[in-house]
Amino acid sequence: MDERVHEHAAVLVDWSAQVEAGDNVVLSVGPDAHDLAVAVAEALGARGANLLATYASSEISRAYLQAHEGAFTENPAHEQALYEAADVVLSIGGGRNTAAMADVPSERRQDYRTARKAVREARYDTRWVSTVHPTRSLAQQAGMAYGEYQDFAYDAILRDWESLAEEMDNMKTVLDSGSEVRLVKEGTDLTMAIDGRTAVNSAASVKYDSHNLPSGEVFTAPYATEGTVLFDVPMTLNGESVRDVRLEFEDGEVVDHDAAEGEGVVGEILDTDEGARRLGELGIGMNRGIDRFTDNILFDEKMGDTVHLAVGRAYDACLPEGETGNESAVHTDMITDMSEDSRLEVDGEVIQRNGTFRWEDGFEE
Amino acid sequence: MDERVHEHAAVLVDWSAQVEAGDNVVLSVGPDAHDLAVAVAEALGARGANLLATYASSEISRAYLQAHEGAFTENPAHEQALYEAADVVLSIGGGRNTAAMADVPSERRQDYRTARKAVREARYDTRWVSTVHPTRSLAQQAGMAYGEYQDFAYDAILRDWESLAEEMDNMKTVLDSGSEVRLVKEGTDLTMAIDGRTAVNSAASVKYDSHNLPSGEVFTAPYATEGTVLFDVPMTLNGESVRDVRLEFEDGEVVDHDAAEGEGVVGEILDTDEGARRLGELGIGMNRGIDRFTDNILFDEKMGDTVHLAVGRAYDACLPEGETGNESAVHTDMITDMSEDSRLEVDGEVIQRNGTFRWEDGFEE
Repeated sequence: MDERVHEHAAVLVDWSAQVEAGDNVVLSVGPDAHDLAVAVAEALGARGANLLATYASSEISRAYLQAHEGAFTENPAHEQALYEAADVVLSIGGGRNTAAMADVPSERRQDYRTARKAVREARYDTRWVSTVHPTRSLAQQAGMAYGEYQDFAYDAILRDWESLAEEMDNMKTVLDSGSEVRLVKEGTDLTMAIDGRTAVNSAASVKYDSHNLPSGEVFTAPYATEGTVLFDVPMTLNGESVRDVRLEFEDGEVVDHDAAEGEGVVGEILDTDEGARRLGELGIGMNRGIDRFTDNILFDEKMGDTVHLAVGRAYDACLPEGETGNESAVHTDMITDMSEDSRLEVDGEVIQRNGTFRWEDGFEE
Repeated sequence: MDERVHEHAAVLVDWSAQVEAGDNVVLSVGPDAHDLAVAVAEALGARGANLLATYASSEISRAYLQAHEGAFTENPAHEQALYEAADVVLSIGGGRNTAAMADVPSERRQDYRTARKAVREARYDTRWVSTVHPTRSLAQQAGMAYGEYQDFAYDAILRDWESLAEEMDNMKTVLDSGSEVRLVKEGTDLTMAIDGRTAVNSAASVKYDSHNLPSGEVFTAPYATEGTVLFDVPMTLNGESVRDVRLEFEDGEVVDHDAAEGEGVVGEILDTDEGARRLGELGIGMNRGIDRFTDNILFDEKMGDTVHLAVGRAYDACLPEGETGNESAVHTDMITDMSEDSRLEVDGEVIQRNGTFRWEDGFEE
């Protein structure tokens, strides 16, 4: 086994999920993520944690969803009981076909998600972390050779997370003291309120309220969004290609949208529920170990010199204690490239211009 | 996909587990059992049941068990909560290497099993059914080509279960009214009490208290075992080959044992706990769709003209209401060939001689 698989497992278990002896761990395994799952099982055994492995297969989900008749009304009590009694949920993505769900209507998927809200909430109540095992299918989606893709993925994952966390703290400080964020570039002029919200220094560890590995972003939960944003990074949403999505906001809600490709799937997501038309997240990518777009949101949204926004659910970590933010069954991220002819302002002060932050060499006021 | 995979799924879901709309189903999937899992997911979706898939990988278990330090003391609360809230547990075996656990000491495995007693009991409290997807690894263990093995497995699984259930009812009637069973063949003269116990007509359906697919046996929970039995059907126990195991019983307990091969692993199993030295099951194989030994207990023990005995746990279905039978963390079956120079008696009356039952043509008194 590639030694990097064991290193990945150690980062996931120790840094990301902070697993301790006696923890009840659910390990969700994609069909092609077996090798990383074995390495994680070894690490969990060595730490004295308890392990239950679940199987996350898009082909199983497709078969189930396509065969199901009538509305989805059930929130499975057994799955909810599992997560309620779990301390940690580690999800290792990695299938054999990223388009495995392509023929399942978005509406059916969203109905299923909506019915399972309580299961999802119980899972979010654990020390959960999502990662991926680099597979041939992900390499194909990225348009890369397998070995090349492994190098790319491990460059993003096996970082000095302590040091990146310190760097990202600059951005958190700016956002925590700010009231309004503005994004400006061609096709984009968007303002969002962030007053009273807390930014998360997403350093790929639950101790930073950060639940993705790799991570490397600073995010918060904006509201009162006004203006227009163009997401010019191509991506796949619910198995469909989308390109140049444009959202127009008034009073915090999407009032108009279009796209050069995939307008239909974007519309279906926005129609899921009331919260799906409002933003749940503003995230600023700061992982410069990620040097290209690979059509995988887990990596793309963390790339340095990008900003992403998610419609749908806000993370509790960004909200004042006891307050609920935007609620929704969806949380769909879309990305805009901030590397050229662009600026990010907080309360009128430019924080990032053309991909360079205020605290970096070469920043132009 | 082979149409027989869909037929297998339909038998499992409808006949074996009697799945209904709203049932909370746990589907345990072996690493090479993906195709059957997809077919089962489709059937569960069509029936309106809820599905959570778990991943049953021997390589994950091995990595976990080998890395674990110190005693196993924990009964995982999250896994127990899952099974307690489940209505149905469908286990689809099918790995890539039947020897995947070969280097894990039996003692470690038994410690782990012992610690997880409550999880296991919760699972047995559901409508659970175990089956296997025919894999290349199982074909190899059987010494058969893959296509040949698929034919073998589906011949055993895709039977007319209603009709076999009627045939097996003859044996259940004899055992239910009997007090003592005696097995006699070369190397074997064993008596067991069955008075007060109820035989299970194991017709591969929970409605018959039968939890294996394929099945095709009639079993009960014997006690007060006396004498000697030779298990002359070769098999693999905990990843090790065993052959010609001989157990000697006094007052219901194993007082001596030896084996031509694998004596060590048999000893380790017998030493698990007190109940591991007593019988938990007497089973009479009646599935004549199984025409050869394939070193897989799920099939071998159901073969017509064989009898098997298990040391360890007895099934509640065989016991009077509210009474507990033999308790143990193990349930290990071993098989003896009854096709030649042998007889099975109940209360002194010969019920099977040289592989022919009393109610069959050619039976010799």
